[in-house]
Amino acid sequence: SDALASTASVAGVGVDQELISSVPSSNPTFVERNFTEAEIAYCRSQPSPPSSFAARWVGKEAVFKSLGVSSKGAAAAMKDIEILPDESGVPNVTLHGDAKTAAHDKGITQVLVSLSHSETVAIAFAQASI
Amino acid sequence: SDALASTASVAGVGVDQELISSVPSSNPTFVERNFTEAEIAYCRSQPSPPSSFAARWVGKEAVFKSLGVSSKGAAAAMKDIEILPDESGVPNVTLHGDAKTAAHDKGITQVLVSLSHSETVAIAFAQASI
Amino acid sequence: SDALASTASVAGVGVDQELISSVPSSNPTFVERNFTEAEIAYCRSQPSPPSSFAARWVGKEAVFKSLGVSSKGAAAAMKDIEILPDESGVPNVTLHGDAKTAAHDKGITQVLVSLSHSETVAIAFAQASI
Repeated sequence: SDALASTASVAGVGVDQELISSVPSSNPTFVERNFTEAEIAYCRSQPSPPSSFAARWVGKEAVFKSLGVSSKGAAAAMKDIEILPDESGVPNVTLHGDAKTAAHDKGITQVLVSLSHSETVAIAFAQASI
Repeated sequence: SDALASTASVAGVGVDQELISSVPSSNPTFVERNFTEAEIAYCRSQPSPPSSFAARWVGKEAVFKSLGVSSKGAAAAMKDIEILPDESGVPNVTLHGDAKTAAHDKGITQVLVSLSHSETVAIAFAQASI
Repeated sequence: SDALASTASVAGVGVDQELISSVPSSNPTFVERNFTEAEIAYCRSQPSPPSSFAARWVGKEAVFKSLGVSSKGAAAAMKDIEILPDESGVPNVTLHGDAKTAAHDKGITQVLVSLSHSETVAIAFAQASI
Protein backbone atom coordinates (compact mmCIF):
# COMPACT_ATOMS: atom_id res chain seq x y z
CA SER A 1 0.00 0.00 0.00
CA ASP A 2 2.90 2.37 0.66
CA ALA A 3 4.41 1.29 -2.64
CA LEU A 4 1.15 1.85 -4.46
CA ALA A 5 0.72 5.26 -2.88
CA SER A 6 4.11 6.34 -4.16
CA THR A 7 2.98 5.83 -7.74
CA ALA A 8 -0.54 7.25 -7.33
CA SER A 9 -0.52 10.07 -9.82
CA VAL A 10 -3.85 11.82 -9.49
CA ALA A 11 -3.91 14.51 -6.82
CA GLY A 12 -7.22 16.19 -7.48
CA VAL A 13 -10.23 16.44 -9.77
CA GLY A 14 -12.56 19.30 -10.55
CA VAL A 15 -15.88 19.69 -12.30
CA ASP A 16 -17.78 22.88 -13.01
CA GLN A 17 -20.79 24.01 -15.02
CA GLU A 18 -22.49 27.30 -15.79
CA LEU A 19 -25.31 28.54 -17.92
CA ILE A 20 -23.59 30.26 -20.83
CA SER A 21 -25.94 33.21 -20.32
CA SER A 22 -24.69 33.65 -16.75
CA VAL A 23 -21.06 34.24 -17.78
CA PRO A 24 -20.76 38.00 -18.46
CA SER A 25 -18.52 37.66 -21.48
CA SER A 26 -19.75 40.92 -23.01
CA ASN A 27 -18.47 42.83 -19.96
CA PRO A 28 -14.95 44.07 -20.83
CA THR A 29 -13.95 44.40 -17.16
CA PHE A 30 -14.87 40.78 -16.45
CA VAL A 31 -13.10 39.59 -19.58
CA GLU A 32 -9.89 41.55 -19.04
CA ARG A 33 -9.72 40.61 -15.38
CA ASN A 34 -10.13 36.88 -15.94
CA PHE A 35 -8.73 36.01 -19.36
CA THR A 36 -5.29 36.41 -20.87
CA GLU A 37 -4.79 38.26 -24.13
CA ALA A 38 -4.27 35.00 -25.99
CA GLU A 39 -7.47 33.54 -24.52
CA ILE A 40 -9.45 36.62 -25.48
CA ALA A 41 -8.11 36.55 -29.03
CA TYR A 42 -8.94 32.84 -29.32
CA CYS A 43 -12.47 33.12 -27.92
CA ARG A 44 -13.27 36.11 -30.15
CA SER A 45 -12.15 34.10 -33.20
CA GLN A 46 -14.58 31.28 -32.49
CA PRO A 47 -18.05 30.82 -34.06
CA SER A 48 -19.74 31.64 -30.73
CA PRO A 49 -17.52 33.81 -28.51
CA PRO A 50 -19.97 33.69 -25.55
CA SER A 51 -19.85 29.88 -25.61
CA SER A 52 -16.07 29.86 -25.86
CA PHE A 53 -15.64 32.32 -23.00
CA ALA A 54 -18.11 30.34 -20.87
CA ALA A 55 -16.42 27.00 -21.59
CA ARG A 56 -13.03 28.49 -20.72
CA TRP A 57 -14.47 30.09 -17.59
CA VAL A 58 -15.82 26.80 -16.23
CA GLY A 59 -12.52 25.22 -17.29
CA LYS A 60 -10.65 27.66 -15.07
CA GLU A 61 -13.00 26.91 -12.18
CA ALA A 62 -12.55 23.15 -12.70
CA VAL A 63 -8.75 23.52 -12.79
CA PHE A 64 -8.89 25.61 -9.64
CA LYS A 65 -10.90 22.89 -7.89
CA SER A 66 -8.47 20.20 -9.06
CA LEU A 67 -5.58 22.06 -7.40
CA GLY A 68 -7.29 21.56 -4.04
CA VAL A 69 -6.40 24.97 -2.68
CA SER A 70 -8.66 27.01 -0.48
CA SER A 71 -10.98 29.41 -2.26
CA LYS A 72 -10.57 31.77 0.68
CA GLY A 73 -7.76 34.29 1.08
CA ALA A 74 -4.88 34.02 -1.34
CA ALA A 75 -6.91 32.27 -4.01
CA ALA A 76 -5.44 32.05 -7.45
CA ALA A 77 -6.73 34.66 -9.85
CA MET A 78 -8.60 33.05 -12.71
CA LYS A 79 -6.33 34.88 -15.14
CA ASP A 80 -3.45 32.82 -13.73
CA ILE A 81 -5.10 29.70 -15.13
CA GLU A 82 -4.66 29.94 -18.89
CA ILE A 83 -6.38 27.47 -21.22
CA LEU A 84 -5.43 27.48 -24.90
CA PRO A 85 -5.82 24.87 -27.62
CA ASP A 86 -2.75 23.01 -28.83
CA GLU A 87 -2.23 22.24 -32.51
CA SER A 88 -4.70 19.34 -32.28
CA GLY A 89 -7.37 21.50 -30.66
CA VAL A 90 -6.86 19.87 -27.25
CA PRO A 91 -7.13 22.49 -24.47
CA ASN A 92 -3.81 22.85 -22.65
CA VAL A 93 -3.45 24.40 -19.20
CA THR A 94 -0.66 26.82 -18.31
CA LEU A 95 -0.43 28.14 -14.76
CA HIS A 96 0.96 31.53 -13.84
CA GLY A 97 1.46 33.51 -10.62
CA ASP A 98 -0.23 32.21 -7.47
CA ALA A 99 -1.80 29.24 -9.25
CA LYS A 100 1.64 28.16 -10.46
CA THR A 101 3.07 28.55 -6.97
CA ALA A 102 0.21 26.61 -5.37
CA ALA A 103 0.58 23.76 -7.86
CA HIS A 104 4.35 23.69 -7.40
CA ASP A 105 4.00 23.60 -3.61
CA LYS A 106 1.75 20.54 -3.93
CA GLY A 107 4.08 18.77 -6.35
CA ILE A 108 1.55 18.95 -9.18
CA THR A 109 3.28 18.42 -12.51
CA GLN A 110 0.35 18.04 -14.92
CA VAL A 111 -3.14 19.51 -15.20
CA LEU A 112 -5.51 18.17 -17.84
CA VAL A 113 -8.82 19.77 -18.75
CA SER A 114 -11.69 19.06 -21.10
CA LEU A 115 -14.42 21.53 -22.07
CA SER A 116 -17.89 21.09 -23.51
CA HIS A 117 -20.79 23.36 -24.27
CA SER A 118 -24.31 22.73 -25.46
CA GLU A 119 -26.46 25.62 -26.66
CA THR A 120 -27.13 26.74 -23.09
CA VAL A 121 -24.68 25.08 -20.69
CA ALA A 122 -20.89 24.91 -20.45
CA ILE A 123 -19.20 22.19 -18.43
CA ALA A 124 -15.58 21.31 -17.76
CA PHE A 125 -13.58 18.62 -16.07
CA ALA A 126 -10.02 18.94 -14.81
CA GLN A 127 -7.50 16.58 -13.29
CA ALA A 128 -4.27 17.44 -11.49
CA SER A 129 -1.49 14.85 -11.23
CA ILE A 130 1.71 14.68 -9.21
CA SER B 1 3.19 -2.76 -21.37
CA ASP B 2 3.12 -5.10 -18.35
CA ALA B 3 5.38 -2.67 -16.52
CA LEU B 4 3.14 0.26 -17.43
CA ALA B 5 0.04 -1.59 -16.32
CA SER B 6 1.55 -2.20 -12.90
CA THR B 7 1.74 1.52 -12.27
CA ALA B 8 -1.63 2.43 -13.80
CA SER B 9 -3.41 4.02 -10.89
CA VAL B 10 -6.91 4.84 -12.06
CA ALA B 11 -9.36 1.99 -11.61
CA GLY B 12 -12.65 3.66 -12.37
CA VAL B 13 -14.43 6.92 -13.09
CA GLY B 14 -17.97 8.03 -12.43
CA VAL B 15 -20.15 10.92 -13.50
CA ASP B 16 -23.67 11.74 -12.39
CA GLN B 17 -26.17 14.59 -12.68
CA GLU B 18 -29.63 15.34 -11.37
CA LEU B 19 -32.06 18.18 -11.42
CA ILE B 20 -31.83 19.69 -7.95
CA SER B 21 -35.64 19.67 -7.82
CA SER B 22 -35.68 15.89 -8.35
CA VAL B 23 -33.65 15.13 -5.21
CA PRO B 24 -36.20 14.88 -2.35
CA SER B 25 -34.06 16.65 0.23
CA SER B 26 -37.08 17.89 2.18
CA ASN B 27 -38.13 14.27 2.83
CA PRO B 28 -36.68 13.30 6.24
CA THR B 29 -36.81 9.58 5.45
CA PHE B 30 -34.79 10.04 2.26
CA VAL B 31 -32.29 12.28 4.03
CA GLU B 32 -31.79 10.06 7.06
CA ARG B 33 -31.52 6.94 4.94
CA ASN B 34 -28.88 8.33 2.58
CA PHE B 35 -26.82 10.93 4.45
CA THR B 36 -24.69 10.71 7.59
CA GLU B 37 -25.30 13.01 10.52
CA ALA B 38 -22.24 15.05 9.63
CA GLU B 39 -23.40 15.42 6.01
CA ILE B 40 -26.87 16.51 7.13
CA ALA B 41 -25.43 19.08 9.53
CA TYR B 42 -23.13 20.40 6.80
CA CYS B 43 -25.81 20.62 4.10
CA ARG B 44 -28.25 22.36 6.45
CA SER B 45 -25.58 24.96 7.27
CA GLN B 46 -25.12 25.92 3.63
CA PRO B 47 -26.78 28.87 1.84
CA SER B 48 -28.97 26.51 -0.21
CA PRO B 49 -29.50 23.18 1.58
CA PRO B 50 -31.40 21.63 -1.39
CA SER B 51 -28.45 22.39 -3.68
CA SER B 52 -25.96 20.99 -1.17
CA PHE B 53 -27.96 17.80 -0.63
CA ALA B 54 -28.36 17.36 -4.40
CA ALA B 55 -24.65 17.93 -5.10
CA ARG B 56 -23.72 15.42 -2.40
CA TRP B 57 -26.31 12.96 -3.72
CA VAL B 58 -24.90 12.98 -7.24
CA GLY B 59 -21.43 12.82 -5.67
CA LYS B 60 -22.39 9.58 -3.93
CA GLU B 61 -23.74 8.18 -7.20
CA ALA B 62 -20.56 9.19 -9.04
CA VAL B 63 -18.37 7.57 -6.35
CA PHE B 64 -20.50 4.43 -6.54
CA LYS B 65 -20.00 4.27 -10.31
CA SER B 66 -16.25 4.80 -9.93
CA LEU B 67 -16.01 1.74 -7.67
CA GLY B 68 -17.22 -0.39 -10.57
CA VAL B 69 -19.43 -2.64 -8.46
CA SER B 70 -22.74 -3.99 -9.60
CA SER B 71 -25.76 -1.90 -8.72
CA LYS B 72 -27.71 -5.11 -8.33
CA GLY B 73 -27.86 -7.17 -5.16
CA ALA B 74 -25.51 -6.23 -2.35
CA ALA B 75 -25.11 -2.68 -3.56
CA ALA B 76 -23.46 -0.22 -1.24
CA ALA B 77 -25.89 1.96 0.65
CA MET B 78 -25.47 5.59 -0.28
CA LYS B 79 -25.03 6.40 3.41
CA ASP B 80 -21.84 4.32 3.30
CA ILE B 81 -20.35 6.88 0.91
CA GLU B 82 -19.71 9.96 3.02
CA ILE B 83 -18.61 13.23 1.41
CA LEU B 84 -17.47 16.06 3.67
CA PRO B 85 -15.35 19.14 2.99
CA ASP B 86 -11.81 19.25 4.32
CA GLU B 87 -10.38 22.43 5.83
CA SER B 88 -9.81 23.86 2.34
CA GLY B 89 -13.38 23.14 1.26
CA VAL B 90 -12.33 20.23 -0.96
CA PRO B 91 -14.87 17.38 -0.76
CA ASN B 92 -13.27 14.28 0.78
CA VAL B 93 -14.73 10.78 0.44
CA THR B 94 -14.87 8.34 3.35
CA LEU B 95 -16.23 4.85 2.73
CA HIS B 96 -18.02 2.78 5.33
CA GLY B 97 -19.64 -0.66 5.47
CA ASP B 98 -20.23 -2.46 2.17
CA ALA B 99 -18.73 0.35 0.10
CA LYS B 100 -15.53 0.18 2.13
CA THR B 101 -15.42 -3.60 1.73
CA ALA B 102 -16.04 -3.41 -2.02
CA ALA B 103 -13.29 -0.82 -2.47
CA HIS B 104 -10.87 -2.81 -0.33
CA ASP B 105 -11.58 -5.99 -2.30
CA LYS B 106 -10.67 -4.16 -5.50
CA GLY B 107 -7.49 -2.67 -4.05
CA ILE B 108 -8.84 0.87 -4.28
CA THR B 109 -6.86 3.18 -2.03
CA GLN B 110 -8.10 6.62 -3.07
CA VAL B 111 -11.41 8.07 -4.23
CA LEU B 112 -11.53 11.68 -5.42
CA VAL B 113 -14.75 13.58 -6.10
CA SER B 114 -15.71 17.02 -7.32
CA LEU B 115 -19.18 18.57 -7.05
CA SER B 116 -20.88 21.41 -8.90
CA HIS B 117 -24.33 22.87 -8.97
CA SER B 118 -25.95 25.55 -11.06
CA GLU B 119 -29.34 26.96 -10.09
CA THR B 120 -31.12 23.89 -11.42
CA VAL B 121 -28.65 21.04 -11.96
CA ALA B 122 -26.11 19.25 -9.77
CA ILE B 123 -23.28 17.27 -11.30
CA ALA B 124 -20.39 15.31 -9.87
CA PHE B 125 -17.32 13.48 -11.04
CA ALA B 126 -15.46 10.78 -9.14
CA GLN B 127 -12.29 8.81 -9.71
CA ALA B 128 -11.11 5.69 -7.92
CA SER B 129 -7.42 4.77 -7.89
CA ILE B 130 -5.53 1.66 -6.85
CA SER C 1 10.25 15.04 -11.14
CA ASP C 2 11.57 12.99 -14.05
CA ALA C 3 10.91 9.84 -12.02
CA LEU C 4 7.39 10.99 -11.22
CA ALA C 5 6.71 11.83 -14.83
CA SER C 6 7.63 8.31 -15.88
CA THR C 7 4.83 6.90 -13.74
CA ALA C 8 2.21 9.52 -14.61
CA SER C 9 -0.55 7.40 -16.04
CA VAL C 10 -3.23 9.78 -17.25
CA ALA C 11 -2.73 10.99 -20.81
CA GLY C 12 -5.99 12.74 -21.52
CA VAL C 13 -9.48 13.50 -20.28
CA GLY C 14 -12.69 14.22 -22.12
CA VAL C 15 -16.11 15.53 -21.20
CA ASP C 16 -19.15 15.90 -23.41
CA GLN C 17 -22.85 16.67 -23.09
CA GLU C 18 -25.83 16.84 -25.40
CA LEU C 19 -29.54 17.37 -25.14
CA ILE C 20 -31.03 13.90 -25.59
CA SER C 21 -33.48 15.42 -28.07
CA SER C 22 -30.58 16.65 -30.24
CA VAL C 23 -29.16 13.15 -30.85
CA PRO C 24 -31.02 11.75 -33.91
CA SER C 25 -31.35 8.23 -32.57
CA SER C 26 -34.51 7.55 -34.58
CA ASN C 27 -32.56 8.14 -37.81
CA PRO C 28 -31.38 4.71 -39.04
CA THR C 29 -28.54 6.18 -41.11
CA PHE C 30 -27.14 8.04 -38.10
CA VAL C 31 -27.47 4.98 -35.90
CA GLU C 32 -25.91 2.52 -38.34
CA ARG C 33 -23.09 4.89 -39.17
CA ASN C 34 -22.11 5.56 -35.57
CA PHE C 35 -23.00 2.54 -33.48
CA THR C 36 -21.93 -1.10 -33.66
CA GLU C 37 -24.49 -3.89 -33.92
CA ALA C 38 -23.91 -4.80 -30.27
CA GLU C 39 -24.42 -1.20 -29.17
CA ILE C 40 -27.62 -0.91 -31.19
CA ALA C 41 -28.98 -4.13 -29.70
CA TYR C 42 -28.11 -2.97 -26.20
CA CYS C 43 -29.61 0.52 -26.56
CA ARG C 44 -32.82 -0.84 -28.08
CA SER C 45 -33.18 -3.24 -25.11
CA GLN C 46 -33.08 -0.41 -22.59
CA PRO C 47 -36.12 1.31 -20.98
CA SER C 48 -35.42 4.53 -22.94
CA PRO C 49 -33.52 3.82 -26.17
CA PRO C 50 -33.15 7.55 -27.02
CA SER C 51 -31.49 8.17 -23.65
CA SER C 52 -29.21 5.17 -24.07
CA PHE C 53 -28.17 6.17 -27.58
CA ALA C 54 -27.56 9.75 -26.43
CA ALA C 55 -25.49 8.67 -23.41
CA ARG C 56 -23.40 6.38 -25.60
CA TRP C 57 -23.03 9.13 -28.20
CA VAL C 58 -21.61 11.64 -25.72
CA GLY C 59 -19.50 8.80 -24.33
CA LYS C 60 -17.93 8.31 -27.75
CA GLU C 61 -17.27 12.05 -28.02
CA ALA C 62 -15.72 12.10 -24.54
CA VAL C 63 -13.49 9.12 -25.38
CA PHE C 64 -12.47 10.80 -28.63
CA LYS C 65 -11.48 13.95 -26.72
CA SER C 66 -9.52 11.90 -24.17
CA LEU C 67 -7.41 10.40 -26.96
CA GLY C 68 -6.16 13.90 -27.78
CA VAL C 69 -6.18 13.42 -31.52
CA SER C 70 -7.09 16.10 -33.98
CA SER C 71 -10.74 16.26 -34.97
CA LYS C 72 -9.63 17.36 -38.42
CA GLY C 73 -8.70 15.03 -41.23
CA ALA C 74 -8.30 11.36 -40.41
CA ALA C 75 -10.52 11.55 -37.36
CA ALA C 76 -11.64 8.30 -35.82
CA ALA C 77 -15.11 7.26 -36.83
CA MET C 78 -17.43 7.18 -33.86
CA LYS C 79 -18.30 3.59 -34.71
CA ASP C 80 -14.67 2.71 -33.95
CA ILE C 81 -15.27 3.68 -30.34
CA GLU C 82 -17.50 0.95 -28.92
CA ILE C 83 -19.02 1.27 -25.45
CA LEU C 84 -20.74 -1.76 -23.96
CA PRO C 85 -21.60 -2.68 -20.37
CA ASP C 86 -19.60 -5.39 -18.63
CA GLU C 87 -21.29 -7.96 -16.38
CA SER C 88 -21.49 -5.37 -13.56
CA GLY C 89 -23.09 -2.77 -15.82
CA VAL C 90 -19.90 -0.69 -15.99
CA PRO C 91 -19.43 0.76 -19.48
CA ASN C 92 -16.30 -0.67 -21.11
CA VAL C 93 -14.54 0.93 -24.08
CA THR C 94 -13.22 -1.08 -27.02
CA LEU C 95 -11.36 0.71 -29.79
CA HIS C 96 -11.35 -0.41 -33.41
CA GLY C 97 -9.84 0.85 -36.66
CA ASP C 98 -8.36 4.35 -36.69
CA ALA C 99 -9.23 4.99 -33.04
CA LYS C 100 -7.33 1.87 -32.03
CA THR C 101 -4.35 2.90 -34.16
CA ALA C 102 -4.36 6.45 -32.74
CA ALA C 103 -4.47 5.15 -29.17
CA HIS C 104 -1.72 2.62 -29.84
CA ASP C 105 0.50 5.29 -31.42
CA LYS C 106 0.17 7.37 -28.25
CA GLY C 107 0.88 4.43 -25.95
CA ILE C 108 -2.63 4.52 -24.47
CA THR C 109 -3.42 1.22 -22.78
CA GLN C 110 -6.65 2.00 -20.93
CA VAL C 111 -9.69 4.17 -21.59
CA LEU C 112 -12.32 4.56 -18.88
CA VAL C 113 -15.71 6.17 -19.41
CA SER C 114 -18.75 6.98 -17.31
CA LEU C 115 -22.17 7.94 -18.67
CA SER C 116 -25.14 9.73 -17.13
CA HIS C 117 -28.45 10.99 -18.37
CA SER C 118 -31.21 13.00 -16.78
CA GLU C 119 -34.59 13.32 -18.49
CA THR C 120 -33.22 15.84 -20.95
CA VAL C 121 -29.41 15.83 -20.92
CA ALA C 122 -26.75 13.15 -21.42
CA ILE C 123 -23.22 13.70 -20.17
CA ALA C 124 -20.09 11.56 -20.22
CA PHE C 125 -16.58 11.66 -18.91
CA ALA C 126 -13.62 9.69 -20.26
CA GLN C 127 -10.03 9.22 -19.23
CA ALA C 128 -7.18 7.75 -21.25
CA SER C 129 -4.13 6.31 -19.50
CA ILE C 130 -0.71 5.21 -20.72
